[in-house]
Amino acid sequence: MTKDSYAEAGVDIAAGNEAVSRYKDVTAAWRHPLQLDAIGGFGGLFRVPGDEGRALVASADGVGTKILIAARMRRYGSVGADLVNHCVNDILVVNATPLFFLDYFATGKLQPDVAAEIVRGCFEACRAHNCALLGGETAEMPGLYRAGDFDLAGTIVGIVDVDDVPNPQSVEPGDAIIGLPSVGLHTNGYTLARKLIVEEEYGSAFEQSTYGDALLAPHPSYYEEVRAMQRVASVKAMAHVTGGGLLENVPRTLPAGVKAVFEQARWSVPPLLRELCKRGNLEHEEKYRTFNMGIGFTLVVPFMQAPRALRAAPGAKVIGWIENRGDGEPQAIVHPARA
Amino acid sequence: MTKDSYAEAGVDIAAGNEAVSRYKDVTAAWRHPLQLDAIGGFGGLFRVPGDEGRALVASADGVGTKILIAARMRRYGSVGADLVNHCVNDILVVNATPLFFLDYFATGKLQPDVAAEIVRGCFEACRAHNCALLGGETAEMPGLYRAGDFDLAGTIVGIVDVDDVPNPQSVEPGDAIIGLPSVGLHTNGYTLARKLIVEEEYGSAFEQSTYGDALLAPHPSYYEEVRAMQRVASVKAMAHVTGGGLLENVPRTLPAGVKAVFEQARWSVPPLLRELCKRGNLEHEEKYRTFNMGIGFTLVVPFMQAPRALRAAPGAKVIGWIENRGDGEPQAIVHPARA
Repeated sequence: MTKDSYAEAGVDIAAGNEAVSRYKDVTAAWRHPLQLDAIGGFGGLFRVPGDEGRALVASADGVGTKILIAARMRRYGSVGADLVNHCVNDILVVNATPLFFLDYFATGKLQPDVAAEIVRGCFEACRAHNCALLGGETAEMPGLYRAGDFDLAGTIVGIVDVDDVPNPQSVEPGDAIIGLPSVGLHTNGYTLARKLIVEEEYGSAFEQSTYGDALLAPHPSYYEEVRAMQRVASVKAMAHVTGGGLLENVPRTLPAGVKAVFEQARWSVPPLLRELCKRGNLEHEEKYRTFNMGIGFTLVVPFMQAPRALRAAPGAKVIGWIENRGDGEPQAIVHPARA
Repeated sequence: MTKDSYAEAGVDIAAGNEAVSRYKDVTAAWRHPLQLDAIGGFGGLFRVPGDEGRALVASADGVGTKILIAARMRRYGSVGADLVNHCVNDILVVNATPLFFLDYFATGKLQPDVAAEIVRGCFEACRAHNCALLGGETAEMPGLYRAGDFDLAGTIVGIVDVDDVPNPQSVEPGDAIIGLPSVGLHTNGYTLARKLIVEEEYGSAFEQSTYGDALLAPHPSYYEEVRAMQRVASVKAMAHVTGGGLLENVPRTLPAGVKAVFEQARWSVPPLLRELCKRGNLEHEEKYRTFNMGIGFTLVVPFMQAPRALRAAPGAKVIGWIENRGDGEPQAIVHPARA
C-alpha cells in the first residue's frame, strides 16, 4: 500500500490539517482575555475568573469509527470508557485534574437500553476519575443516522494551577522519553482498520480472543501512572498519542529546536497493530502516523530521573531521547527494530 | 394527523423520556460532592473547587436535523449560531454568564471550506457573548455519515454566583409569565418539519422569502433581553423553549403546586409554524409539545413588575399566569385563541 492508504480508506489527513489551519484564521480575529495558550492543543486553557492562578482546561473528542464496530457487534459497554479516558488523557497533557464531563449521543433510532449502556460506560469511567457526569444530550436523528448507527462525542473540563502547566521550553537534548503502553488502536485508525479487517472476521479467533475483542479493547486512562511518575520525577512535557501517532503528537509539546528520536526495539507492538501493518503493507513512516504502534502516552523527564519514574509506573519504558534538531530535520523519527 | 405524528416522522418522544429515566438510574450510584441540583435540567451545576459560592454551569446540545436542511441547501453559515445560542439560552435559565464553548463537527467527507464556515458561525456567536471558542473536534467518518452530511454539537461552560440561581420555590400563583418571541423552529421539530416541507420546496416563495430561508432562520440568543429585564424586575424562574415546547419546558422550573396557564391570544404564531400545523393537521396540544409556537424563552416575574420588565425588552409579552394547581391537573395548559 502507498503512503496514501489512509486517504484511500476515506480519511483525508491533508484536509484535516487544512481545516485546522482555516480554523486558526477564523478565530484569530478575537480572543477572550482569560484564554491562555494551549500547549500542543490537546486541551484549551481558560483562567478561572477572579482566581487567575488557576485555569480550567477543556477538551472535546469523539470515538471515531470505532463506534461502527461497536454498533455491528452490538457491544455498547466500552465506547463510553473509550471517550472519557481519551478526554482525561488529553487534559492530562497540561496536568489538569478532571472536574466534569458531558456526552453527546446521536442515533437514527433511539433504543433506551443501548443509550443507557453507553451512558453507563461514560459514568463508570468518570467515577473512576472522581469526575462528575454533569450532563449530556441525546438526539434521535432519522435521516442522518441509519437505525442501528450512532455517534458519541463528549467534552471534559478539568482544572490546573497555572504554575503546574508543563513548560516545553524546559525540554533539552539528553532528556528521556518515557512511553506508556497502548492496548490496541485506542480511538484512532479505525477507518483504515475497518478496511483491513472486515465485519465477517469480527468473531474469528485472534490471539487468545477474537478480532472483534481486539478491535474494541478500551482506550485506557493514563491518569494514575502519570500522577505516580510525577511524584518522583520532574515531568517536562507530555503527549497523548492519538490521530497522527507518535510522529505527529509528540512534537506538539516540544520546542522547535529539539527532536524526538524513538528506538522501536525498546518496546513491543501489540499483535493487532502488527497484523494491521502487515495486511495494509504500510510503509515505516505511515505506520507511525496512522497508529499508536504500542505507545499510548509519552512523558519527557530528565535522563537521570528516568529509572525512578519507570519504577513508579509498571509497564512504562524509556522509548527514546530528545536530541538537538538541525535545520530542516523532522521533529520526530523512529528508528526501526532490526528484523 | 393523530397524536403520534412526531413518532410517525421518526422521533420517539417516549423512547427519549425512557432513556432519560434510565440515565437517572445509571447515575444514581454516585455523585460528585461539588455537583449541585440542576434546576430543570437545562444545565448542570458544579461548584468551583475552593470557591464554593460560585458554580460552573455546563450544557451540551446538538442542532438536530436542521443540519440536514443546511446540508441540502449548502448553507453553512448559520448552524454555528444556532448551536451556540441554544447553549447560551440553556445556561441562562440558571442565570449563568458564558465563559467558553467547544464544538464537535463530524462529517462523511471533510471539506475545509465547509468546516471553516461552520466554525466561523460558532466563533461569531461566541464572540457576541464574550465567550471563548476554546476548542473543538473535527472528525471525518466515512461509513457513518454520507459524503455531504454532517453533525454538529457543542458544549458551553458558564459561571454563576450560587445565590443568584433562581429559586423555583419563590414562584406563586398570580405571577406573570413573560414570553420572548421565537423566529421559527429554532432547533426543534425539524424531523417532522422535513416530512411536511420537502426538499423540492426549499427554494419556493414563502412570505417575503423562501421556505428554505424560513426553515434556516437562526436560533436567537435571549441573553441581552433577559439581562435587561433582570435589571428592573425580580426574575423567579426561566425556561428555554426547546424540544417539548411550552407544555414540557416551562414546568421544568416550576414547583409542583402551581401550573402555567398560557393565553394564545396574547402572542402571534410565526407564519412557518402556522403553515406546519396546518399541513400536519396537528391537534391543539400536539402543536405545543412539538413546536415552540412563537415563544422562545419564558420568565416568571411578580405581576406588578411585569410592565417594567416588558418595557426593558422590546418584543416581550405577558403570555400567561401562574395559577394554583389542583390534584391531578396538568402543569401547563394553553387556552387557544378564538377562531
